[in-house]
Amino acid sequence: MGNGLDLEQDVAALTAQLVDVRSVSREEGELADLVEAALAALPHLRVDRDGHAVVARTGLGRAERVVLAGHLDTVPIADNLPSRLDADGVLWGCGTSDMKAGVAVQLKLAAGLPAPNRDLTFVFYDAEEIAAEFNGLKRLADRHPDWLAGDFAVLMEPTDGRVDGGCQGTLRVQVRTTGRRAHSARSWLGENAIHKAAPILARLAAYEPRRVEIDGLVYPEGLNAVLIEGGHAGNVIPDSCAVTVNYRFAPDQSEDEALERVRGVFDGFEVVLTDSAPGALPGLSQPAAAAFVEAIGTPPAAKEAWTDVARFSALGVPAVNYGPGDPTLAHTREEHVRTAAVREAERKLRQWLTA
Amino acid sequence: MGNGLDLEQDVAALTAQLVDVRSVSREEGELADLVEAALAALPHLRVDRDGHAVVARTGLGRAERVVLAGHLDTVPIADNLPSRLDADGVLWGCGTSDMKAGVAVQLKLAAGLPAPNRDLTFVFYDAEEIAAEFNGLKRLADRHPDWLAGDFAVLMEPTDGRVDGGCQGTLRVQVRTTGRRAHSARSWLGENAIHKAAPILARLAAYEPRRVEIDGLVYPEGLNAVLIEGGHAGNVIPDSCAVTVNYRFAPDQSEDEALERVRGVFDGFEVVLTDSAPGALPGLSQPAAAAFVEAIGTPPAAKEAWTDVARFSALGVPAVNYGPGDPTLAHTREEHVRTAAVREAERKLRQWLTA
Repeated sequence: MGNGLDLEQDVAALTAQLVDVRSVSREEGELADLVEAALAALPHLRVDRDGHAVVARTGLGRAERVVLAGHLDTVPIADNLPSRLDADGVLWGCGTSDMKAGVAVQLKLAAGLPAPNRDLTFVFYDAEEIAAEFNGLKRLADRHPDWLAGDFAVLMEPTDGRVDGGCQGTLRVQVRTTGRRAHSARSWLGENAIHKAAPILARLAAYEPRRVEIDGLVYPEGLNAVLIEGGHAGNVIPDSCAVTVNYRFAPDQSEDEALERVRGVFDGFEVVLTDSAPGALPGLSQPAAAAFVEAIGTPPAAKEAWTDVARFSALGVPAVNYGPGDPTLAHTREEHVRTAAVREAERKLRQWLTA
Repeated sequence: MGNGLDLEQDVAALTAQLVDVRSVSREEGELADLVEAALAALPHLRVDRDGHAVVARTGLGRAERVVLAGHLDTVPIADNLPSRLDADGVLWGCGTSDMKAGVAVQLKLAAGLPAPNRDLTFVFYDAEEIAAEFNGLKRLADRHPDWLAGDFAVLMEPTDGRVDGGCQGTLRVQVRTTGRRAHSARSWLGENAIHKAAPILARLAAYEPRRVEIDGLVYPEGLNAVLIEGGHAGNVIPDSCAVTVNYRFAPDQSEDEALERVRGVFDGFEVVLTDSAPGALPGLSQPAAAAFVEAIGTPPAAKEAWTDVARFSALGVPAVNYGPGDPTLAHTREEHVRTAAVREAERKLRQWLTA
């Protein structure tokens, strides 16, 4: 295929080819072009494009439609390109695990399953690794929700081959104190806003986070100060202090309920919401999800971090995370993926979609 | 005198002339030149120069030598120049109170007392309003300690016409906590350094500062957080937090003793000294000081803020603050001085030095 993507090659070799096309967030154009061109050559797929996102769909009139989604972008490269395959069959490089291995599996299935047992939608999107305002899946959900329609979605983020159901929600608030400035040589004329923050930190330190079980999965919450700022200069009594608190909450709570809980913890303090994203229920009791879990054959777990599955959840599509990479390696200089794991993911999904 | 300083004019008019020569810290050259030229014209004074500092001395062989010191620089101008004299006899503008009124009194005495009852040293120095490394009095103390020799010093910083004895010391420490970074979605893998700072703030909030009486003056201490910083990003458990604490301590303690007290308060935490300056004992029991206090005729008070009197104290010269301006107006856009107060300061000092 010259400079194009070769979808006939082994999935591990395809992963390496994808990794070697640099695609840092907002610079996914070249990779999106390659993906679009490779899929457009397949007569059984309808291909749509929006910005640096590509969506390819079968139209077989099957009873169920499954969405397989992955992002094309990576975090900035950390001197770890081009990719390198070592003697143990481990592929090293930026994006190997998060998540070009998953994208390679999608592309292999797109090319190799012209007549699957369920209709398939393959979503390749941009800008997952940066601020939500740029997120390609968010943009598709806003502009083309019909492209994302389905009965069940698998987001192929790295999970080490485990099915991670749903995801926790996340919100951030600023908890603020105010005081009165004064020269620190005459501190009794002022009112120290940093000292007033003592109970905020004490309540955080004493907080016992919930552990919530849903569909047999346990979601452990967390309530943490992530930033603190206060003061002006070395000789001034500070008149303001702000603690940014991140609440990771189980998907049994709505965003509003989660915010109410946080307000309760900081009763008596000014609490200002800065951002918020809902969780996603695992939905493992749904038939399409249950069949998928059975095909993968390992016990599912709760997803801790917020992921784009919540965007499918918001569209009414139950969604899980499943992918061959190791999530703990994401964004590290030592990012790598076992090629055996990539082949196994391809094999299991192929089995599920052809059985 | 053309463009020169007219030391014959009324002290209030001289103050206005000084104010209208801009002399923001490190830009005092023009004003230092004017002061040097005016004093060099007086045959009873020996005049020395170092950078933007000018020192003028009588050499009459009197039993006592008194140093009158003031700084030439001001904080940045805040749209409050040129000066303006209002109908109530109040002079407005940058540096009126802090401290060109005091400098005008120095210059009037330098010109008008060719044969005072004590030998006189007039010190005009630069860069008092900025970081200590630039301080002109510090530089003179290092390079020419003999220029500053004397039995008693009056630093003519604004005190509202009160004698402020000695000054408090000041030191700053960072009190630090450390933890372990983790993604905030998996906070149990980390250790939150901001949460660990809770007892630091609680101890500060509960701390009861000392009030120390020396020579009949009360020095009220203060122990305050002035800055707090911690955290990296909205989704990361922070692994470090630092609280900058400023301790203003009474001059009965050395810097080392003050630091030990602070270490005791934060027992169990890492405490790192960042800067420190000693206090100055009021020394009001010394004869030269007692005569001065009697001449001024109002009860002395303890100086709260650290001032350059501590530099004289370190040279073994007892020193007080005394000046016509209002210290609470220093560095404000509304800075002003009552011309009656400037005249009164001149009259009282002249009386003390001629009686």
